[in-house]
This record gives sequence, structure tokens and C-alpha cells, in this order.
Amino acid sequence: MNSLPEATALLASGDNFLLTTHLHPDGDGLGSMLALGRALKSRGKRVEMVLAEAIPSSYTFLAGAQEVRREPPTDFVPSLVIALDCGDRTRMGLPPSFSFPPEVPILNVDHHLSNDFFGRVNLVDPEAAATGELVHRLLSAGGYKLDAAMATALYVAIATDTGFFRYTNATRSALALAARLVEDFALEPGKIAEIVHEQKSLNAIMLLSLVLATIQLALDGVVAWMYLSQEMLLRYPVEIEETEGFINYARSIVGVEIALFFKEAKPGEIRVSWRSGPTVDVSQLAAHFGGGGHARAAGCTIYADLAEAVERVLGFLAAWHRARERQR
Amino acid sequence: MNSLPEATALLASGDNFLLTTHLHPDGDGLGSMLALGRALKSRGKRVEMVLAEAIPSSYTFLAGAQEVRREPPTDFVPSLVIALDCGDRTRMGLPPSFSFPPEVPILNVDHHLSNDFFGRVNLVDPEAAATGELVHRLLSAGGYKLDAAMATALYVAIATDTGFFRYTNATRSALALAARLVEDFALEPGKIAEIVHEQKSLNAIMLLSLVLATIQLALDGVVAWMYLSQEMLLRYPVEIEETEGFINYARSIVGVEIALFFKEAKPGEIRVSWRSGPTVDVSQLAAHFGGGGHARAAGCTIYADLAEAVERVLGFLAAWHRARERQR
Repeated sequence: MNSLPEATALLASGDNFLLTTHLHPDGDGLGSMLALGRALKSRGKRVEMVLAEAIPSSYTFLAGAQEVRREPPTDFVPSLVIALDCGDRTRMGLPPSFSFPPEVPILNVDHHLSNDFFGRVNLVDPEAAATGELVHRLLSAGGYKLDAAMATALYVAIATDTGFFRYTNATRSALALAARLVEDFALEPGKIAEIVHEQKSLNAIMLLSLVLATIQLALDGVVAWMYLSQEMLLRYPVEIEETEGFINYARSIVGVEIALFFKEAKPGEIRVSWRSGPTVDVSQLAAHFGGGGHARAAGCTIYADLAEAVERVLGFLAAWHRARERQR
Repeated sequence: MNSLPEATALLASGDNFLLTTHLHPDGDGLGSMLALGRALKSRGKRVEMVLAEAIPSSYTFLAGAQEVRREPPTDFVPSLVIALDCGDRTRMGLPPSFSFPPEVPILNVDHHLSNDFFGRVNLVDPEAAATGELVHRLLSAGGYKLDAAMATALYVAIATDTGFFRYTNATRSALALAARLVEDFALEPGKIAEIVHEQKSLNAIMLLSLVLATIQLALDGVVAWMYLSQEMLLRYPVEIEETEGFINYARSIVGVEIALFFKEAKPGEIRVSWRSGPTVDVSQLAAHFGGGGHARAAGCTIYADLAEAVERVLGFLAAWHRARERQR
């Protein structure tokens, strides 16, 4: 069941709440958990917020962050488990040692398109810019009184998950809600952003340096491509998500219409990320290699070594480029 | 005179307007010029928008961008010259060959703290997040009717100049105005941001790669430092502004409290940029070397070679670090 009234009723009915979000928590997961936890406490509920991992230092300033525990208190049996920003049950950041009785319901609050509705009750809306937007909906429907701390947590959730209003999920309503939170509680967006500035590992930055050094232009500067080999990854080990933004550097070069990032996932398996501006639909181009995605962001996998994968893609694009030039 | 009523009156009185912004135009300068130009045209005024330079491709989608000319039409004599986002008269992006009679007044609309009030009438407010915010004030005071194109231009002005609501000038009122423009004219913030994504030169990215490779941690990871030598600049020549964001990479490393960027301006002259998080006031530290600035961003110049400048600063910081550790 995917229902706001049911979700609100569930919050009103129980007394012992276990809240969690996903591992490698981001501003949306943490902000959503902290805002909801604080609201429930304000109604006199017992709230345990659990995450089997340290909270990134950029978010420890949020009220309640110090109360998040690595594991629930011994013998704590929740009446309701609330998963925030988790696409499926395995993403929930509870410690492996902890289990709760199967009759305890899960409330699943999330905005991922891939969400598999694992909760007894679900509040899932892929149209929402952030899970924080859904928490705000939940608190409004339940008549909870927001305070500045909750507003800050929800602002952080929305601002960070929309890349500070730059990603395609940065909707009108997300910006309007963020502005309203800022206005109503006299928040200072510039100061908040200064604190939650993106943190990176040293390895991720050194790896970025190596990858940027591989950038080459092709087809009169229409294409920029770069690569990440296993050798480079061994030198600077990182979580693979830490390389996700790398392709934007190639994409940002003046005149470039198509950016390509060849990642050697393992020897002989090359994952290719495609990005483009408004002039090219890369999902159509990636489809030639069995891939897909969106017009501006697509991907494909090529089973070959790095040099051959690059040659195949650039060869295909050269033909595409010639055909396009003829049509102009 | 710094006066909104005078500025509004000036717009109402004349008929031939020459609008310009600064060279290397940004979203604020262009957005402000295009929004104001369009509003004035809607009142039947003759408007010439002039900039002695090409408009960056990320902004050519703004309505009216195609009407901006490199130089005014021959024999055009404006009744009013309007400078948007120009800190002083020399910043105005008019072609050197063009001059206008000294009796033609200048209206100076700007938000730079350094503005020297070069206009006959000035609308200068350093508290404004962007010149676009001042143009909005001007249009509201004059009763001009906004349309979606003007709203888009003003949104771009405010969003880009506040680093998409992340810089310290990202005030409550800037975010509120941006959200209102988006709401009133059904703009799509995510789509706008996709178009105006930051563009960089290939040289700037290759230089970034070289600079990142120099990053080193010191004092148990409290300090991250990196450098840019003349040799590196000769290899990848860039405008010096293109290196301004580099220090944020050092600053973003997990655990780093102070980031240092040593730039060899010329042999024997090292400009040091200091950045910090909320825990350290770098203006006090830079003052030890005759520099200054703000708590989170400061600078100093050291007359020495690169290695010696690094040694001096790190030596000083080692003593500071020991003293701080003792106090804890």
C-alpha cells in the first residue's frame, strides 16, 4: 500500500520507533531521518535512530546527529521500523547482528524510482525531488509543528539531493519548499551550504587527477573522452560511487557535445558512461552498443580491453559525426 | 547618488538606451542586461545591448542573447548608458573605439562592494546577492510587467552568482526571489541549470589535473596543501580566474581543516590562498605573513621561492598546531 493517510496513521498509533537510512548516508537520508525523529519525539514518542556507520562530518551539525547510534539499545523492540531513502530492504543501514520480529511493520519512505515497496506501508513517490520532501508531506499531513532544526534538516535533504537545485530532479516544488523552509525559520542558505560542502577522500581526488590527465578531444572537439583503468584504481582505491562525478569534467569543456568515460570494471569489461548537452541524444548512441539511459546521460558495457573499447566507440562516433556534418 | 527612485525615473525619462555588462560576462551580468533590456523594449524604448565579446554558449539560450551586438550601430547616440554588474567604469564591456558624449548619463546597477559609484545615478547595494536582484527591484519599482523570459534571465543571474545558493551571498531573500520567479512563471530550475552548466577550458582542466597531483597532507591530515608553478602555467596557459576554485578540492578532503594553495605568480613571488572550515580562522593565520581576508578565506603573499614559502607556512602551522593540541 502506497498511502499518505496510512503512513500518517501508523506514526500516530505506535510508541517505539526505530528510524534508519541507507549506508554511506547522504544529506537526504540523514536530514529526513533527523527531521522525522525530532518531530516524533516532540509528540512524546520513543525514537531510536540507528545507522551502522559513522555520520559524515559535514552532517554532524544537524540537531540530533549525536543521538544516532551504531546499533539499537539491547532488548529494544520497536513497534514500527521506518526506512528513509532506502530503495529496498537490504539498503537499510541496520547492523547485521540486529533483527526485529516479522510482525513489526516497516514504513518505507523513499523517492527512488527503483523502490520495490518493501514496507507494510509505503510512502514512495519518484516525482519527489528528495525523501525530505516526502517527510515534509508526512509531517504536514500529521499536523506536526516544524521547528528551525527540522527545517534545517529538510532543507539539507532537498538541497543536497538536487545538487543544490541543479539536477533534473530540481523541480519547481522542491525549490519552493526549500525557499519556504528558509523563509519561515530564518535559515541562512549560504551558511548551511558552507557547512555541508561536499567531502571527498584524498584517494578520490588523486584518482581524479589521474583520470583528468587522460582527457583527449576527438572529432574536432565535439567529443571528449577519458578513462579509468584497473591499475589506476589499485593505486588509489575508492568506492566506485566516488568516481561518478568525474565525467562532468569532460562534459564541461567548451565546445564538447559528447563526453565519454571508459571505466575498466575488470579486465575485459569496460563500462562506458555517456553524457551530452542539449544537442545530442546519447541514449540512442549508447544503444548501438546494447546500452541505454536518458538523452543526456546513458551507459553501455563493452567486453574488450580498454584500447579496443575506445577504438570501437570513437570509430562509431566518427561515422555518426560525418553523417551529421553531411546533413547540415 | 545611490537611489532607486532616481534610477526608476531615469528609465522612464529617456528613449535611447545603451546597455552593457562587463567583459568575460557571467550569468549575473548577462541575465541582468537581458532582463532589463527586454523590459525596456516592452515599454517601446529603443534598446541597444552591447558587449565587445562573444557570449558564452551556456547563456545563448536566454531570450535576447542573439540581439547583443559587439558594437553599437554607427551614429547611435544613447540618451542613457546602463552598466550592469560593473564595479567601475573601466569594466564596462564597450568596444574601445566607441565613445559617447560626456553629457550622456550613466546608470550604474551593481552589487560589488568595491563599486566606486561611477554613474550619474547609481543603484548599488553590496547586500544584494546579485545584480539581477537589483534589476528586479528596479522593474518592480517601475511597475514593469515581468514575463517568463525576463524571469528566466533573472533566475540565471541569481542562481549563478550565488553558486546555486551555496556561496555566502546566498541570502534568504535571494532564494525567496528565485523561488518566486520559478513559481510565478513555471520555470524548471533543473532544466535551466542543465543548460547553464559551468564551462571550462581544456587547459584549465589539464592544469587542475597537475595541481591536484601535488596535494599533500600535513599535521596529521589537518592541513592539505598544493601548488601551481610557473612551469605548470606555461604548459597549460589559463586565465588566472580559472584557477580560483582549485583550492576547494584540498578543502574538501575528509578531515582537512586548513587548505593552502601556493601560486607562483612570478619567480620569487608566491601568493598563498587559505581556506578553512568552521574550526579555524585563517585570516588570523594569514596575518602572520602580512595577509588577511575572512575567517574562512584569506590570502597572503610571500617573497621567496616555492619550496621556501611552503616551508615557512608549514613551519608556522606546525607550531600553531602544537599549541592548539596542548590547549585541548
